[in-house]
Amino acid sequence: MINELPPKLLKPTFFEPQMAFLSLTKLMNKKFLAILFTALVSIGARAQQNTGFRPGSIISPQVNEGNTVTFRLKAPVAKFVTVKGDWEADGGKGAMTKDANGVWSFTTGGLPSDMYLYTFNVDSVQLLDPTNAFVVRDVGNLFSVFFTNKGNGDYYSVKEVPHGSVSRSWYTSATFNTSRRMTVYTPPGYEESKTSYPVLYLLHGSGGDEEAWVSLGAVPRIMDNLIAEGKAEPMIVVMPNGNPSKQAAPGETKENLAYRPVMSNTLPGYKEGSYELSFKEIVDFVDKRYRTQAKKSKRAVAGLSMGGFHSLFISANHPDMFDYIGLFSPGINFKTVNMTIPAYNNLEEKLALQMKKGFQLYWMGVGTTDGLYDPLQDYKKRLDHLRFPYKYVESTRGHIWSNWRSYLLQFTPLLFKK
Amino acid sequence: MINELPPKLLKPTFFEPQMAFLSLTKLMNKKFLAILFTALVSIGARAQQNTGFRPGSIISPQVNEGNTVTFRLKAPVAKFVTVKGDWEADGGKGAMTKDANGVWSFTTGGLPSDMYLYTFNVDSVQLLDPTNAFVVRDVGNLFSVFFTNKGNGDYYSVKEVPHGSVSRSWYTSATFNTSRRMTVYTPPGYEESKTSYPVLYLLHGSGGDEEAWVSLGAVPRIMDNLIAEGKAEPMIVVMPNGNPSKQAAPGETKENLAYRPVMSNTLPGYKEGSYELSFKEIVDFVDKRYRTQAKKSKRAVAGLSMGGFHSLFISANHPDMFDYIGLFSPGINFKTVNMTIPAYNNLEEKLALQMKKGFQLYWMGVGTTDGLYDPLQDYKKRLDHLRFPYKYVESTRGHIWSNWRSYLLQFTPLLFKK
Repeated sequence: MINELPPKLLKPTFFEPQMAFLSLTKLMNKKFLAILFTALVSIGARAQQNTGFRPGSIISPQVNEGNTVTFRLKAPVAKFVTVKGDWEADGGKGAMTKDANGVWSFTTGGLPSDMYLYTFNVDSVQLLDPTNAFVVRDVGNLFSVFFTNKGNGDYYSVKEVPHGSVSRSWYTSATFNTSRRMTVYTPPGYEESKTSYPVLYLLHGSGGDEEAWVSLGAVPRIMDNLIAEGKAEPMIVVMPNGNPSKQAAPGETKENLAYRPVMSNTLPGYKEGSYELSFKEIVDFVDKRYRTQAKKSKRAVAGLSMGGFHSLFISANHPDMFDYIGLFSPGINFKTVNMTIPAYNNLEEKLALQMKKGFQLYWMGVGTTDGLYDPLQDYKKRLDHLRFPYKYVESTRGHIWSNWRSYLLQFTPLLFKK
Repeated sequence: MINELPPKLLKPTFFEPQMAFLSLTKLMNKKFLAILFTALVSIGARAQQNTGFRPGSIISPQVNEGNTVTFRLKAPVAKFVTVKGDWEADGGKGAMTKDANGVWSFTTGGLPSDMYLYTFNVDSVQLLDPTNAFVVRDVGNLFSVFFTNKGNGDYYSVKEVPHGSVSRSWYTSATFNTSRRMTVYTPPGYEESKTSYPVLYLLHGSGGDEEAWVSLGAVPRIMDNLIAEGKAEPMIVVMPNGNPSKQAAPGETKENLAYRPVMSNTLPGYKEGSYELSFKEIVDFVDKRYRTQAKKSKRAVAGLSMGGFHSLFISANHPDMFDYIGLFSPGINFKTVNMTIPAYNNLEEKLALQMKKGFQLYWMGVGTTDGLYDPLQDYKKRLDHLRFPYKYVESTRGHIWSNWRSYLLQFTPLLFKK
C-alpha cells in the first residue's frame, strides 16, 4: 500500500557545511575508494534535493530609486531576450541587452507604486525570472512578482504590523451537493478576542478562484495594512469559489493535474444563476463557523468582473442581506446573459425593492479603457432612471488587477462605519 | 495616500466572448474610427491581463500507462533542451528531441508512484514547464510538479474525501520578542465537532520554512487521505517556522523581496538552542487557540533533517511533553554543533530521563545513500548503550522529499493509538 522505492546505486551526498567536514574526515578511512568512486559516478547525475542551495550573484528584479526596475537574466547562448510585464511605462515590455558575461538586462522607466507581474522570453520561450522566488498564478499562467513602493504598492507589501490569519476551508453546499473551498481572512486579534466581526464577501472574476484575491489581489496585506492604519474596520474577508462546476481551485480537486485552468465562461454553470441564488448557503456557513455580526448592516459583498456581476445579482436577490455592495469592473453586458431565468429576471423590480429596503453604499468602479466600460455606463443609466443611489469611480487603464487592488483600497475604508 | 495611476492612451480591450460581440455592434456606431485606431495601436502592445486565457494544445506533463511520463516544450529556436527531475529512472534527466513543429519531447521510463519536481533547460537557461500551472518552491528554486499513481503518489494527490482546513496564523514569541508564523492543518470535521484532538508538531529542514511540509511534503493531502482510510487518527498538524531569526517564510516578512531564500545554516540562530528551549511557547499557543488534548500522550513531534535535530532536542529537553518522536533523516552530526550550550549539553542524562519518564514511540528513518546516514548510526549506538528503545527504518535513496513524505506516511499511522 505504502510503497518503498526500488533500490538504486548508492550515491554519497554533500549538502551542508558539516557534511563537507564529515566527508573530509572520511577521506582518511577505509571507505575512501568506495566514496571516491561513487562521488565520481554521481557527478552530473543528480544533486541531493536542492540542499546546499545558495542564491546566485545575479539580482533580479532590482527596484531602484525612483521605482525604475532592473531585470537580469543569464542566458549566454540566447539570441533575443525580452521582459514583459503588466506596467504601461515602456509599453510593459523591453528588449534586454547582453553583457560580456552572457547576462541580459533591461531597466524600466519609473513605475507607479504597485504590485507587478512579469515574465521573460528567451528565443520565443516564455519563462519566469529564475532568481525571483515569488510567483503567482493567473488562470493558467505563472508570473514573477515584485512591488514598487511609496504608494499603493506599500499596501500590497508585508509591513511590520499585526497580521491576520488566512485559512483554506471547505463548506458543504446542498445546492451543488458537494463540498466547496473558500479562503477566509480573519483580522489580527480575531482568535484572542470575544468580539464579533463584520464580513466582506469578496468574489473573483472568470479567470479566478478562491486563491485569486489572495495571490493577485494581495488581500491579506491590504487588510493588515489598512486595519493597522485605522483606515478600515477589522473585518472578516470571505473569498469563496464562484465556479459552480468546480469545488476548488486548480490542483485542489480530485482532478489534480487533469484540471487545467480555464476561464469560467468555458465551464458549466457560468452565469446560470445557481451560485447567486444559493449564496445564503455561504453566508449561513460563515455565520456559523466564525464570530460574525450576522446582520445586514455588517455585511458587504463585492467582486471583480464576473464577481461584480455576481455581486449585483446576489445583492439584488437578497435585499435583506447586504448594506454594502461593490462592483469592480463588473461583467454586466446583459446582452450575453439569459435574463429570463429567476436569478436575473425582473431586475428593475428587484433593484426597486433593494432601494426601498435600503443600503449604505452601492460602489461601482471601472477603468476608462476597460471593454466593460460601456456596459457599466448603460447600467448607471438604469440606476439613474430608478433614482437608485450609488457611488461611481472611474480610473485609468483597463481590465487589470492594478485597478481591482486599487478599488479594494478605496472600497474597504467605506465599510461598516455605521 | 492611495494613488491613482497616471492617465494613458485609451485602449479597447476584448477579453470575453460577450466583449467580442460588443465590439462588433460597436463597429456600426460613431466610435468606429477611434476604436479601430486604438485597436491597431494596442496590437502587440499589451493584452488585457491574462483575460481570454486558453490552454494551449501542448500537454505536458502527460502521465502515461505504467507511469512513464512525457514532457513537451515548444522551443523552435532552441539548440539543446533537457528535462531534469527528482526521479532516478533515467538519471533524473533526459535530452529532449525536437519535432517538425519545434516541440521538444522526452518520455521517462516507468516512475515509482510519487510526487515529482522538474524543470526544463533550454540552451542553458532553466525554466518551469509553461503548460503546467502547478509549482512549488524549495529554498529559492521553483519547480513544476506532477504525481504518478498507484502507490505513495495517491496519498499526495487530492482524493474525493473530506478535507481538513489549512490556516496560516501568527503567534507571539516572548523569547524572540516578535510574532511568528505557523501553518496549521485541522482535520475534517474539526470546526463542527466539540471534540479535542491530538497534535503532531511537524518541523522543516534547513531549506524550509512553515510552507515546506505543505507544498513539498503534501501534508494536507496525506492527512486527509490517511484519515479517510482510517489509517491515521484525526489530528491537528502544526508546522511552525524553525528559523529563529526569521518571522516567516520568504515573501511573508517585512523584508518582502529583499528576503532571498537561503539555507538555515547561513542564518543567525542556527542550532543555537533558543528554538528548542522555547518550544513550549508554541505548544502553549496551540493548546490555547485550538481544541487540543493538551497532554503528553496526545502530542507528537517530528521533523526532517534540521527538523529532526530540533525534534531530538525539543523532546529531550521537554521529557513531559511528547509521547511520540520522529527523526526523519535527522541532521545530527554533533561534531559541528556546540554541544556545551544548555539546549544540547548533558545529552545522555537528558535521554536517560526521557526514557525513565517514558514515551510510546521514538521513530527514526534514513536513506542508505543519505550523507546523514552515518551520524544516525552513531546516534543509534548511543541509544543502544543507554538501552533507549526506538524504531528504526532504512529506506533507499538519500536526502530527498520522496523519503520524508514516505516516512510521514509510515509515522502518522503509529500515533495516538493509546
